[in-house]
Amino acid sequence: MSTRPRNLLAGVPLGLPAELVEELVRTRGARLERIVSRGHRTPDGEWYDQEWDEWVLVLTGRAELRIEGENDLIQLGPGDSLLLPAHVRHRVEWTDPAGDTVWLALHYAP
Amino acid sequence: MSTRPRNLLAGVPLGLPAELVEELVRTRGARLERIVSRGHRTPDGEWYDQEWDEWVLVLTGRAELRIEGENDLIQLGPGDSLLLPAHVRHRVEWTDPAGDTVWLALHYAP
Repeated sequence: MSTRPRNLLAGVPLGLPAELVEELVRTRGARLERIVSRGHRTPDGEWYDQEWDEWVLVLTGRAELRIEGENDLIQLGPGDSLLLPAHVRHRVEWTDPAGDTVWLALHYAP
Repeated sequence: MSTRPRNLLAGVPLGLPAELVEELVRTRGARLERIVSRGHRTPDGEWYDQEWDEWVLVLTGRAELRIEGENDLIQLGPGDSLLLPAHVRHRVEWTDPAGDTVWLALHYAP
């Protein structure tokens, strides 16, 4: 197995018609992903409602999340992490259209 | 459960006599930690030899790792990630003494 480092801020395609989701680690009860957004957002009227807990971290860029039932949007920038418990419905309202927003997402069995 | 974000680059004590290791997520087969180093390194002659696979990511700062049996040190900077399979012996040779090196480490059952 390679012990060469890989930079997660690099290696983003020039064109990004959809969000880029890539699995970094998969184990029995957890899955780590890199996600790259460039202005992408959850389609109007849709919510994420997940079976597993999700921990997210913004490595670079900016995003705004909405939690169902909460008035204020959650602003996320570099270094910001957030726990989204299973079945807490949420959506991505905005990501910076002018640059890449690189996220880590750890999904795990609650 | 709180859905407030937390910035992982902030909240580091002024004094850091030892590396700061903090558990962010624990589940059956995985454990996510934040580690903050400030010039800390693995003591001379010691190696990490772990039962679980470990995936690491440098969020900010700089570090050098040594893998047993490899000639070249591995240089890590912001955004660099590395997979350290179970029982691949390794040590941290150097972290930047002039600033904080903030790591994420995901330990998981192989």
